[in-house]
Amino acid sequence: MDVGIIGMGRMGRGMAASLARAGHRVRAWNRSPEGSRGIEGVTPVASAAEAFAGDAAITMLADDAALEAVVVEGGLLDGAGRPKVHLGMSTISVALAGRLAAIHGRAGVPYVSAPVFGRPDVAEAGNLNIVAAGPAPAIEAAAPLLQAMGAKTWRFGEEAQRANAVKLAGNFMIVAAIEAMSEASALSEAHGVSGADFLDLMTNTIFAAPVYKNYGGAIAAGRYEPPGFGLTLGAKDIRLALQAAEHAGVPMPFASVVRDNLIDAISHGDGGKDLAALALVADRRRGRT
Amino acid sequence: MDVGIIGMGRMGRGMAASLARAGHRVRAWNRSPEGSRGIEGVTPVASAAEAFAGDAAITMLADDAALEAVVVEGGLLDGAGRPKVHLGMSTISVALAGRLAAIHGRAGVPYVSAPVFGRPDVAEAGNLNIVAAGPAPAIEAAAPLLQAMGAKTWRFGEEAQRANAVKLAGNFMIVAAIEAMSEASALSEAHGVSGADFLDLMTNTIFAAPVYKNYGGAIAAGRYEPPGFGLTLGAKDIRLALQAAEHAGVPMPFASVVRDNLIDAISHGDGGKDLAALALVADRRRGRT
Amino acid sequence: MDVGIIGMGRMGRGMAASLARAGHRVRAWNRSPEGSRGIEGVTPVASAAEAFAGDAAITMLADDAALEAVVVEGGLLDGAGRPKVHLGMSTISVALAGRLAAIHGRAGVPYVSAPVFGRPDVAEAGNLNIVAAGPAPAIEAAAPLLQAMGAKTWRFGEEAQRANAVKLAGNFMIVAAIEAMSEASALSEAHGVSGADFLDLMTNTIFAAPVYKNYGGAIAAGRYEPPGFGLTLGAKDIRLALQAAEHAGVPMPFASVVRDNLIDAISHGDGGKDLAALALVADRRRGRT
Amino acid sequence: MDVGIIGMGRMGRGMAASLARAGHRVRAWNRSPEGSRGIEGVTPVASAAEAFAGDAAITMLADDAALEAVVVEGGLLDGAGRPKVHLGMSTISVALAGRLAAIHGRAGVPYVSAPVFGRPDVAEAGNLNIVAAGPAPAIEAAAPLLQAMGAKTWRFGEEAQRANAVKLAGNFMIVAAIEAMSEASALSEAHGVSGADFLDLMTNTIFAAPVYKNYGGAIAAGRYEPPGFGLTLGAKDIRLALQAAEHAGVPMPFASVVRDNLIDAISHGDGGKDLAALALVADRRRGRT
Repeated sequence: MDVGIIGMGRMGRGMAASLARAGHRVRAWNRSPEGSRGIEGVTPVASAAEAFAGDAAITMLADDAALEAVVVEGGLLDGAGRPKVHLGMSTISVALAGRLAAIHGRAGVPYVSAPVFGRPDVAEAGNLNIVAAGPAPAIEAAAPLLQAMGAKTWRFGEEAQRANAVKLAGNFMIVAAIEAMSEASALSEAHGVSGADFLDLMTNTIFAAPVYKNYGGAIAAGRYEPPGFGLTLGAKDIRLALQAAEHAGVPMPFASVVRDNLIDAISHGDGGKDLAALALVADRRRGRT
Repeated sequence: MDVGIIGMGRMGRGMAASLARAGHRVRAWNRSPEGSRGIEGVTPVASAAEAFAGDAAITMLADDAALEAVVVEGGLLDGAGRPKVHLGMSTISVALAGRLAAIHGRAGVPYVSAPVFGRPDVAEAGNLNIVAAGPAPAIEAAAPLLQAMGAKTWRFGEEAQRANAVKLAGNFMIVAAIEAMSEASALSEAHGVSGADFLDLMTNTIFAAPVYKNYGGAIAAGRYEPPGFGLTLGAKDIRLALQAAEHAGVPMPFASVVRDNLIDAISHGDGGKDLAALALVADRRRGRT
Repeated sequence: MDVGIIGMGRMGRGMAASLARAGHRVRAWNRSPEGSRGIEGVTPVASAAEAFAGDAAITMLADDAALEAVVVEGGLLDGAGRPKVHLGMSTISVALAGRLAAIHGRAGVPYVSAPVFGRPDVAEAGNLNIVAAGPAPAIEAAAPLLQAMGAKTWRFGEEAQRANAVKLAGNFMIVAAIEAMSEASALSEAHGVSGADFLDLMTNTIFAAPVYKNYGGAIAAGRYEPPGFGLTLGAKDIRLALQAAEHAGVPMPFASVVRDNLIDAISHGDGGKDLAALALVADRRRGRT
Repeated sequence: MDVGIIGMGRMGRGMAASLARAGHRVRAWNRSPEGSRGIEGVTPVASAAEAFAGDAAITMLADDAALEAVVVEGGLLDGAGRPKVHLGMSTISVALAGRLAAIHGRAGVPYVSAPVFGRPDVAEAGNLNIVAAGPAPAIEAAAPLLQAMGAKTWRFGEEAQRANAVKLAGNFMIVAAIEAMSEASALSEAHGVSGADFLDLMTNTIFAAPVYKNYGGAIAAGRYEPPGFGLTLGAKDIRLALQAAEHAGVPMPFASVVRDNLIDAISHGDGGKDLAALALVADRRRGRT
């Protein structure tokens, strides 16, 4: 298929590579042009409008503001060569996803929310878990692309924003898992057990899942840089989850706790580290530093 | 080896069966005698003192009070036929474990704390993860028993109570995982996604670990009875974790949240259900019932 | 002085009455015209622009959106007859206050943030506590108006948004006081003491302050309607406080708790009641209803 | 009346002085004898048993353990010269109060729980607020003593432990007020407003109550030593409140937050300071230190 990608950060680059490897013709645009260069089979284009065309366009941008700036304020939907489907794969708010679905509907461009679970190396390997919601024919038309990028596509119906609610709920679970490991390690260490030994046990037995292994390994090693998933981005996702929860009338006390702890981390200069650095808060609060 | 078990609840029975299957000679005592009957190769005895003898004695009782009543107040350590090692496998407080280590030391009976991760069916299969701390020679002497009961024994040094700190920290992580799934499902459902679909995604991808699969499956199905791990027992473990944390100077805001939610659950009549029924609190708080 | 008021809800009407009583010439505008009628000495005007003129203009609107719609999008600052000072007395976000200060600066209209503490009857009596920040000459020019409306004006410097931070911090303290009374009453009642008797003691001794007497009296009597200060408005203020806190790097765990409890209250249909109805959450959570 | 006091800490000494000033004959015992010396009209005695006699005995000890050691293990109720009424004025657990009521009942000594609100200077001035519960005739018999020590006695029925539930609920409200001021000040300061200016406003207007003035003044001045009410004691009271809440099925999320923050404070070496030093936690968490 003929596909354009807007947003060539580490995730976007991995996805573009997977698409090209699967034989798709990939055009790519990034705000800073070097982002779209140097991937075999991927053709850099000079404007977002050139990428927003063809059989499908994919957006993979940092946040609501970036997506609104490029798609809405950038007037992409008014362009001539609009794509047959827009796959919105960024982690954005439920509210923006709903708005995008509405304005795409008016513009006659099918919009599918398709955020993903997986870090950049997983994107590069084409093994993402893709959470998709939107018009069924559009999702089916995009199937070859989704198969190239993901291990599996999980479908959540026709309302695009549901996929975003799922993505935010999932990211909340990731942050909660890190907080749980942080508190549990702090408890263990305060009783003379090394956090590394404790986490080795847990992440190899009843918590032997990728999230625990990844972040638990980082906490055990005290290895918070370079960031795989930045703490500030995690804080943004918790903010979006709390907004979506408030709007839908859902108390989320765990999300509130991690919100406060992420602020604590950022106020202590750890915003640029990996999300696993949330563990430093529990350490500090027990007087360790 | 010649081993006695004190406490033949569902966990104790599973462990006794595993030991007998491995060829050990097993004596068993339970407060209500029927508990110790009907397992092939396991001989019921009439008193705790008869079980507290031989190559090793194992205690697997419900809580601090039960263990103190039988071992300390029951005067087992003053008996004639004391065992060569005492494996304390109950989930008890760090404080009691420390006290037991001290009084066993004075009585000349090596004491090993060896609490376990795993539900009754895992005990029955001999696949527990055993967390052991205590005098190294005693742990080594008990190795054939530990191998019969467990998939692996994880060692945490010579101070017995460290194993209990690890066990409580681990159980806290279990309850935290259930709370995280509960809040995340509530968020998803409030946006039109079924909790079952959401949990199916999470527990088969980045959270594909036994704890998430077990409890996530129960939450997805709304299946809270019969209890595998009772909610009231979980509340007890969180209380013990918070006590151990307070004593060692560790704030645990997640543990505080689940403490409040477990109280909420018990006050709404769900104390006799499975720990997974914690999910009903998040549901109720968003006005669903 | 010649003053215009924009926003004649219950607070605005009380303030207008106080101003007229003190001899000021008061023009008033409200979105629904009946709001500005029927107060002796207060002249209704047909447009916000007619009110935004004279020696001073006062805005007292429900929230950020209302203020932005009228002042910014309504283009008031581009009008011919602009006032000598704008007193922004609404409870709005720190961010919007900062933005208003900037655009007023460019338009050459001095902007003073002057939110207030006090319910409508206090406004009517001219006994508000006014929290003012902005250019000193502007505050001094407005002194006769502030004296007419308030018992005292508390000044917080030249940066307008500081007054809004103070107002939000104060409103947070009010909600926290209600939550504390709610939990303490629940604890008392669960031990057989009537919450009314308990609150009678506390609010007449070490907590003998207006906030405790007002809300404690309402909780003791179970009297939540009609709302003096609506629960939904309180939830909005907590949201603004949390946003201001996050932006400035301040964890606020109490604010997080009341946020969740206010959502719980709204999800149970109590959003239209008085803020004191927050007490129903603590009651419900202990299984009382 | 002829009264004995057991426990001559700062509170006990103030109460003894008030009693003597009112003309009562006061015997006093303290573990370290110097504690009971040097108050006009107060006669030191050599044993707790000598104080536990006469028309009434008062106990004012630090905690459950001290009271149990002296009264229960010390066998005071088996003594010959038992008092006509025992006023238990210490801040103790609801559970212990219930147990004391039961064993006093069996011993035929009327037991009244009568904990107090007020710092040592208030005790010295005879202006305590006394919270009394127990057999009505016993409370009435003790009326002259209660009048000498207190501004007012608030009665909560015949079940002694109800007074203790009220006392713990009240102390929780004090700690919650400090936490609310701490977070609100942190928010203000992060926006450029001095905490002292902010607290000056609040504690002189809608929060003009003794608790806010006392602790708010200390926070504003950063004056945490010497302790009026020690932070470690406050942590003990929150622990007792949480125990009483758990036992009665009451979630208390605010109490959980302050529990964690008090642990944080103690782990940072502030346990010996005044309870107002809880404010240092909010400061530290926003990265100020």
